[in-house]
Amino acid sequence: MNTLKLSNRISSLTPSPIRKLATLAVTAEQQGKKVHKLNIGDPDIKSPEKFLDALKNWPKPQFGYAPSQGDAQFLSSLTDYYKKLGFDYLNKEDILTTWGGSEALILTLMSVANPGDEVITFEPYYTNYNSFANFAGVTITAVSTDIKNGFHFPPVKEVEKLINNKTKAILICNPNNPTGTVYTKEEVEELLKLCVKFNLFIIADEVYREFVYDGKKQISLLEYMDKYPDNIIICDSLSKRYSVCGLRLGALISKNKELLEKTLYYAQARLCAGTLDQYVAESLNHVEKEYFDNVISEYELRRNTLYEGLKNIGIEVTKPEGAFYIVAGLPVKNADDFCKWLVSEFSYNDETVLLAPAAGFYKTPGLGINQVRIAYVQNVEVLKKSLKVLEEALKLYKD
Amino acid sequence: MNTLKLSNRISSLTPSPIRKLATLAVTAEQQGKKVHKLNIGDPDIKSPEKFLDALKNWPKPQFGYAPSQGDAQFLSSLTDYYKKLGFDYLNKEDILTTWGGSEALILTLMSVANPGDEVITFEPYYTNYNSFANFAGVTITAVSTDIKNGFHFPPVKEVEKLINNKTKAILICNPNNPTGTVYTKEEVEELLKLCVKFNLFIIADEVYREFVYDGKKQISLLEYMDKYPDNIIICDSLSKRYSVCGLRLGALISKNKELLEKTLYYAQARLCAGTLDQYVAESLNHVEKEYFDNVISEYELRRNTLYEGLKNIGIEVTKPEGAFYIVAGLPVKNADDFCKWLVSEFSYNDETVLLAPAAGFYKTPGLGINQVRIAYVQNVEVLKKSLKVLEEALKLYKD
Repeated sequence: MNTLKLSNRISSLTPSPIRKLATLAVTAEQQGKKVHKLNIGDPDIKSPEKFLDALKNWPKPQFGYAPSQGDAQFLSSLTDYYKKLGFDYLNKEDILTTWGGSEALILTLMSVANPGDEVITFEPYYTNYNSFANFAGVTITAVSTDIKNGFHFPPVKEVEKLINNKTKAILICNPNNPTGTVYTKEEVEELLKLCVKFNLFIIADEVYREFVYDGKKQISLLEYMDKYPDNIIICDSLSKRYSVCGLRLGALISKNKELLEKTLYYAQARLCAGTLDQYVAESLNHVEKEYFDNVISEYELRRNTLYEGLKNIGIEVTKPEGAFYIVAGLPVKNADDFCKWLVSEFSYNDETVLLAPAAGFYKTPGLGINQVRIAYVQNVEVLKKSLKVLEEALKLYKD
Repeated sequence: MNTLKLSNRISSLTPSPIRKLATLAVTAEQQGKKVHKLNIGDPDIKSPEKFLDALKNWPKPQFGYAPSQGDAQFLSSLTDYYKKLGFDYLNKEDILTTWGGSEALILTLMSVANPGDEVITFEPYYTNYNSFANFAGVTITAVSTDIKNGFHFPPVKEVEKLINNKTKAILICNPNNPTGTVYTKEEVEELLKLCVKFNLFIIADEVYREFVYDGKKQISLLEYMDKYPDNIIICDSLSKRYSVCGLRLGALISKNKELLEKTLYYAQARLCAGTLDQYVAESLNHVEKEYFDNVISEYELRRNTLYEGLKNIGIEVTKPEGAFYIVAGLPVKNADDFCKWLVSEFSYNDETVLLAPAAGFYKTPGLGINQVRIAYVQNVEVLKKSLKVLEEALKLYKD
């Protein structure tokens, strides 16, 4: 007898640790509290003026499909953007426009691994990788990184030990969400060499490419694509770069021709990425350097404010080198309990803070239990208020 | 030794029969030919004025995330739309906003079936179901329907015979793409009863709900949701209804609480549907009846033009009762070869036509080999020109 039962993959999903406390925040707001939302990377920075202007110039009487690979003008703007970064060997044929970085990652996992295969990544990692891997039937193997070491990679031998005949790929996020770590040239190249040696794909989630501080620069895997065309897959997104998280525009990029051909067949089935979204963003290659300079210096100021503030109230932190997150070890036993209490029971001057408990960013049970991820996507004034709330809350909290 | 090989699921994908000839059309256009694109359901009808006006009123300096379930105002407009259709027991909690109907279908298959499970549908069927099923690891079992019977369902016993312990769901598309068939109340209810009896999900792709001609009305499974809350899943889309195919807005609708809860967890991982798209469409509940009346009578006129025109040149057709497609049996051996020849080698008055070969809409090898799907998404004048091109082409073509 058949039973009306959901599939194992959907049954085993759990709520996103980034979004799961959001309903508590709604309740707090209904009680008249101001909730500073530092749980999610949804920036308050203004989008480029050209994007906002484009809205007034939509030229058609309806919103028809775009080509499955992406709108021609949008793809050409993308290749131009990569060219300006120095990667002039990237052509339109190497790019598939996706529904945000999310779809690029889902599609990549679906494409490189069969159900039961393994993909190695470094914990703590972007927690949504779990749901994407679940849907692809892929097992994530996690290599631990440590707050005391700035969450940099352990020696490459530690990674090599985990490779077996089911391993299909290594996935890195650089600059890293949630840790803010920016990997050195040596770290990136050693990992790439390992993948080439063992015939693995290397997947780089580089959606925070521009967000690197202290005058440093990210080492993009785009730089090595010409030399290792078959191994490298880049998952990119416009979301953070231009404060367009809601436009759902990303890209799967590779010189692996078979991969691009086959993912295009899949893209044809789901028809296209948003036509209007692509239209709005099609001038991305004309966004001035000044726009990014301002954005980066604003985030650097926020990073400094948050890092120094957390250190001053005795919280364990390592200075993030990029992205706009910090993982902080709180002086509590269980950060999940603390975060719930903070948003639903505590307030200071009628203000409270919504944070993302970090245990959900770890694969290994027991790791990160006292940690939170804080997104510095609000201005310095909000961050200072949030720090004060956190300081007062920790004085009072007993677990 | 590991090998750098793509997954089986992506390797086995084939190009969409709807989109695969598109590159030949580009070449034809470069040669100066006018190509009438009747291969794809991308309407030329104007979107509601309110949608176009909304573009001028975007109220924010950036494009941030929407809630994962959907923007509150958008969800409320959706429930209002369903209420006006008479389904007042549908609440926000029963709806998940998706990336078009495509994501609703992908997510539904992922949710109701484990890899290796089976879903029954009726051939010819919307060809992209194949790619979605491939990604979910689900096998499609096809029940054949016949052009001579207007592609209506065979007796329900024929369907019952195919149910085994791996069968998880029956999927119907009503009004049907590609056949234009609108199922009777008896057909819908018998199938529903069968699903209830055998503990199967019944998935209804109802994206063409409004497109029903000759004064008839679609029997929506929404009508039975209150009575069979756990079995029924509706995949809906705004694409065709408001000529917004490129906005990528759809909905997964069910009263099955566990399904909605778990798919929301997945939705959280991929963050949200397009924020701007939802903003543009949030007045959908205020689109006047007059808008639809005009659209439907325009499509009815086109349907009549195309149907009569095809019949007059001796092509085997059945009169579509809804949607905006017709499946036509051409007097050729292989419609795939003919469609390629038509767009790349033939022209009449410097015009040619792009059609979708229908064999790709069948699961059973050998069926539909001489058939094409024609979308009547262009105006009557274009349809008349296309009919003339087809008539002249068939006089000349030898296979």
